[in-house]
Amino acid sequence: MTTTLDLNCDMGEGFGAWRMGDDLALLDQVSSANIACGFHAGDPATMQRVVGAALARGVAVGAHPGLPDLVGFGRREMKVTPAEAYAMVVYQVGALAAFARAAGGRLNHVKPHGALYNMAARDRALSDALAQAVRDVDPGLVYFGLAGSPMVEAARALGLRVAEEVFADRAYDDDGRLAARGTPGAVIEEADAAVAQVRDLLQGRVRALSGAVVRLQADTLCLHGDGAGAVHFAQRLRAALAADGVTVAAPRRGD
Amino acid sequence: MTTTLDLNCDMGEGFGAWRMGDDLALLDQVSSANIACGFHAGDPATMQRVVGAALARGVAVGAHPGLPDLVGFGRREMKVTPAEAYAMVVYQVGALAAFARAAGGRLNHVKPHGALYNMAARDRALSDALAQAVRDVDPGLVYFGLAGSPMVEAARALGLRVAEEVFADRAYDDDGRLAARGTPGAVIEEADAAVAQVRDLLQGRVRALSGAVVRLQADTLCLHGDGAGAVHFAQRLRAALAADGVTVAAPRRGD
Amino acid sequence: MTTTLDLNCDMGEGFGAWRMGDDLALLDQVSSANIACGFHAGDPATMQRVVGAALARGVAVGAHPGLPDLVGFGRREMKVTPAEAYAMVVYQVGALAAFARAAGGRLNHVKPHGALYNMAARDRALSDALAQAVRDVDPGLVYFGLAGSPMVEAARALGLRVAEEVFADRAYDDDGRLAARGTPGAVIEEADAAVAQVRDLLQGRVRALSGAVVRLQADTLCLHGDGAGAVHFAQRLRAALAADGVTVAAPRRGD
Amino acid sequence: MTTTLDLNCDMGEGFGAWRMGDDLALLDQVSSANIACGFHAGDPATMQRVVGAALARGVAVGAHPGLPDLVGFGRREMKVTPAEAYAMVVYQVGALAAFARAAGGRLNHVKPHGALYNMAARDRALSDALAQAVRDVDPGLVYFGLAGSPMVEAARALGLRVAEEVFADRAYDDDGRLAARGTPGAVIEEADAAVAQVRDLLQGRVRALSGAVVRLQADTLCLHGDGAGAVHFAQRLRAALAADGVTVAAPRRGD
Repeated sequence: MTTTLDLNCDMGEGFGAWRMGDDLALLDQVSSANIACGFHAGDPATMQRVVGAALARGVAVGAHPGLPDLVGFGRREMKVTPAEAYAMVVYQVGALAAFARAAGGRLNHVKPHGALYNMAARDRALSDALAQAVRDVDPGLVYFGLAGSPMVEAARALGLRVAEEVFADRAYDDDGRLAARGTPGAVIEEADAAVAQVRDLLQGRVRALSGAVVRLQADTLCLHGDGAGAVHFAQRLRAALAADGVTVAAPRRGD
Repeated sequence: MTTTLDLNCDMGEGFGAWRMGDDLALLDQVSSANIACGFHAGDPATMQRVVGAALARGVAVGAHPGLPDLVGFGRREMKVTPAEAYAMVVYQVGALAAFARAAGGRLNHVKPHGALYNMAARDRALSDALAQAVRDVDPGLVYFGLAGSPMVEAARALGLRVAEEVFADRAYDDDGRLAARGTPGAVIEEADAAVAQVRDLLQGRVRALSGAVVRLQADTLCLHGDGAGAVHFAQRLRAALAADGVTVAAPRRGD
Repeated sequence: MTTTLDLNCDMGEGFGAWRMGDDLALLDQVSSANIACGFHAGDPATMQRVVGAALARGVAVGAHPGLPDLVGFGRREMKVTPAEAYAMVVYQVGALAAFARAAGGRLNHVKPHGALYNMAARDRALSDALAQAVRDVDPGLVYFGLAGSPMVEAARALGLRVAEEVFADRAYDDDGRLAARGTPGAVIEEADAAVAQVRDLLQGRVRALSGAVVRLQADTLCLHGDGAGAVHFAQRLRAALAADGVTVAAPRRGD
Repeated sequence: MTTTLDLNCDMGEGFGAWRMGDDLALLDQVSSANIACGFHAGDPATMQRVVGAALARGVAVGAHPGLPDLVGFGRREMKVTPAEAYAMVVYQVGALAAFARAAGGRLNHVKPHGALYNMAARDRALSDALAQAVRDVDPGLVYFGLAGSPMVEAARALGLRVAEEVFADRAYDDDGRLAARGTPGAVIEEADAAVAQVRDLLQGRVRALSGAVVRLQADTLCLHGDGAGAVHFAQRLRAALAADGVTVAAPRRGD
């Protein structure tokens, strides 16, 4: 059984005068912060502020690179080539790493955002490009990818340290993929059920929508910061993890 | 007398499908390449391509951060605060440094672009912010600033290695600043006169528009890549420098 | 004494997934909506939504063109030429007018935003360019400009219908300009004092910070939508205007 | 047989300081100009300049709206919803129509650009949204769509005047669609063959790659402005059309 779990959350998703989510409240609940890098959200001043706040709380800082689509918040799939994706990830990871260094810290991980994540989770060639970009910028970085997906395989093949990511509030299909949001039952609304799913995942398995049991590795859990109950659910989950003797901590860099 | 001179040129100033200048031709003439970082020009794929080409030719790679103004090519002044300028320079320098690392090289210098350069050359507070950004990202970087200007003072005060920049084709005023482009005689069109001005500058002085002699330090000379005669003038200047026993070489990082 | 006053408010200042202000609440209080056009805020879907909501409530729809600066929300001055400003206003006014037409309505006015407004309020050449742009797109449009400023003069000189704009919560200097925000007393926090200033303005005058009485024409009053008390103040002001027999209505197009 | 053919070309595809193609040379060869509207190319000043140049030569002015992807030049498909596409077309058509009005002219047609065109050519729901946007902005506009495709059907169903577009230098498949660029023979390099294909198309048919004869209506022919031989081919084609008694003219608005 897994006795350490990372809790990660997307942060710094404002842009200029616009805010989104309550970054500071969630920073107290998570061990890893995925910080937007300017393409789907996150202007330089916002990046600087959120990186500083995370480091001040001992939260591991990660880059959260996305597609170049501010209007669509990086959630609309775009037909980018692996070579284009490689360059946009090098760019964004480099930018965020600079803010970490400038604040006296160090970048710990990379987690692709939104449509870029979803596309990579089903496309090995794209996953290869993303993992190569991360390794070429800094081979010590931890790569966050959907548990059991090509993202994980591609990063391992390049020798990157990997954190397999699971979800508390999303149902799985028989292949270990997230059930599409439209599907009935795809989003787990009840906190009890979400906590129970995390406990299952820590045993290396999850019950899919069909009832089948699927094996998955759980290294890091994604907490969604948008909803009003985000902080409350995070507190409750942490209490359950503490009761089970599970430590919440960020994965260590590979150096 | 100065016996080593760096020749620098702005490069990578295309964007997506758009090209500008003839980067590869000029790469054979210069010792330092100032590469656009995405705010005034330079998308990720272009940055990757030009960084690779510079490193392959042994040309030192520098970041050329600008104001966030693609339409205006970073040439329109904007009232940004020092704090905003700090963040936009950390961001852009980090992004370009990542491409240098990914290509197996290392970022050597930073030269602000266009209106950001011009504003800093007359504003110490802005210069302090830019130099702090460079130092916070990487204290070994060489900072390129207008010779004799607040840019140079600010960077020195922070312990950065500095290259004072001079121009062959621009006339100076009595304070050692570039004469405004509108002024008669402000742009030196004749190659002979431009070469002669470089020879003066290597003696630590320049004859201003008024006829007065102004003292200036010349560490790096800016070659403009736009005009058709850019490569031809660069070749001619290099021949003159060779005849005078002046070595063309990039300044070394401070580590 | 003025017996009709327009109440205007900036709206549609979200962008993509980001929201700002409470557009629908304020729509019930104003007679004119200044809707962002995509350069400082306002993506196409947001523009469509807010135009539709304004027309549905009988609120006059106006274009609120700004500088191309999403990160700075159009509040940072940029050195744009009058020719550049002309083109960016034609573009934005045309875009917003199309949403008005598509919704079965008609664009009623144009009010420049933020730094573009502030720059025009002290620069006749820029004001000429903005007014020309408005007239060239649609000569029936009403132009909103700072009362007593070059904006008003330029638009009148071109034959445009003009609404002179005044402020309830900003103090004036002896020239009839808004006192700079940093100046003590520049922002009128008390609702009573703000209502009193509007009553003065409807008499064609305002007491400046120095105590001097300045003559100003008040055709339209700007309500700020940002603060929490915006709706409350708007209700109170409308009650005061009703008590004084002042009608709240948008100015009519010039055709 | 068709005795009138429109020749259209994409134009105004620079952005800020960047240029693309030789707009003025091609303007002398075509009857319709499709002018970029700022999303994939074309800043306001460029739009103003090219609209003015087209009107001065009697060339019909059209809007060429694209996906919001400057880096990818609007050539990368994005998963936009029909509602998003509707709003982005209203916006761009409105902006370009304003430049036409400001120059004393009138917008004549709309042709979607790049990936937006390709996606619409195989997707009726997207085509419905685009056609609705065009009709809602100005029901007199002519809609340019791929001959025989859902673009044409959707626009006709809404009562828009339609120009079915064909290509001289692209091979067709048996369904009347353009053969994918990767396919051998998909691009017709020889000018003789391209002219011959136009002559076939004017008879209402084209020989597909398979050898089959496909029926297509040819109202407007797309000339590509990128290649060096673009002007030369255009001159040759016009000579052939003149010899056949075919008039080159833009389609008329529906009012």
